[in-house]
Amino acid sequence: MFVLGIDPGLTTTGYGVVRGSGPAVVAVGAIRTSQREPVEQRLGEIYRDVCGVIEEYEPQVLAIEQVFINQNRATAIGVARASGVVILAAAQHGVIVREFTPTAIKNAVAGYGKASKQQMQKMVAARFGLPVPPEPADAADALATALCYLQTARLEAFT
Amino acid sequence: MFVLGIDPGLTTTGYGVVRGSGPAVVAVGAIRTSQREPVEQRLGEIYRDVCGVIEEYEPQVLAIEQVFINQNRATAIGVARASGVVILAAAQHGVIVREFTPTAIKNAVAGYGKASKQQMQKMVAARFGLPVPPEPADAADALATALCYLQTARLEAFT
Repeated sequence: MFVLGIDPGLTTTGYGVVRGSGPAVVAVGAIRTSQREPVEQRLGEIYRDVCGVIEEYEPQVLAIEQVFINQNRATAIGVARASGVVILAAAQHGVIVREFTPTAIKNAVAGYGKASKQQMQKMVAARFGLPVPPEPADAADALATALCYLQTARLEAFT
Repeated sequence: MFVLGIDPGLTTTGYGVVRGSGPAVVAVGAIRTSQREPVEQRLGEIYRDVCGVIEEYEPQVLAIEQVFINQNRATAIGVARASGVVILAAAQHGVIVREFTPTAIKNAVAGYGKASKQQMQKMVAARFGLPVPPEPADAADALATALCYLQTARLEAFT
């Protein structure tokens, strides 16, 4: 069973495809778009690239980080728009969608809801047996989100 | 020349197709999704219905209201996600995308940046020569957004 983890963003959308048994990393990377391009082109690129990953690896589940509005509202709107087209791509391919808060993801992976980006990168590397922490941090967050789904699904199976 | 105005929202997305000469209303309505459905299904419905409107009327321009984050953050994220799939639909059909702030739209249509929903519905009806104000308010806002684009484009043509 494959899980696609996504950390959405208009400038950088991290993705990670994870195999449930192990767990093991099957693919990891980041979709980047230029701030010089119009928003419609950027959303189109994110949508196309996510469709490409889904068609290549055929994940059953999309695990995605929930949008969190804090200081920068313009960034939050970009994240929400990117997550909109990612969720649409999943729905069109029959992929189940599961959302997780940043705190739930940090708790699941690092055992601490306020873990830093660096701590998360190190914990993701340790949990997947990777020789070096995944780069960029968005890719590590995507893997962390997939891991959060796997742990949640496992817990639910026991209860 | 046809302009598609959109007032995006996860629960209600207002739309209006406007002919530049006149200007005249060609089509107006609202796409509604149920809060009982999962978000991926709702975004899929909005995307499909907007694609249907674009394919039927072939507008050259999408005029869309910018997402404005005020009190309700969950609503703002839903609006941003809906706007993401609407903008994607436009991009995939080669439709030019133009965004306007709520204040710019109210100024253009009612001459007053803090016009109420009722005032906007009345002004939209008057500007298009409609016998009754368009319902729901989201549909009137969509027509107002299309009108805002037309006025802006006309102003630019004169300068």
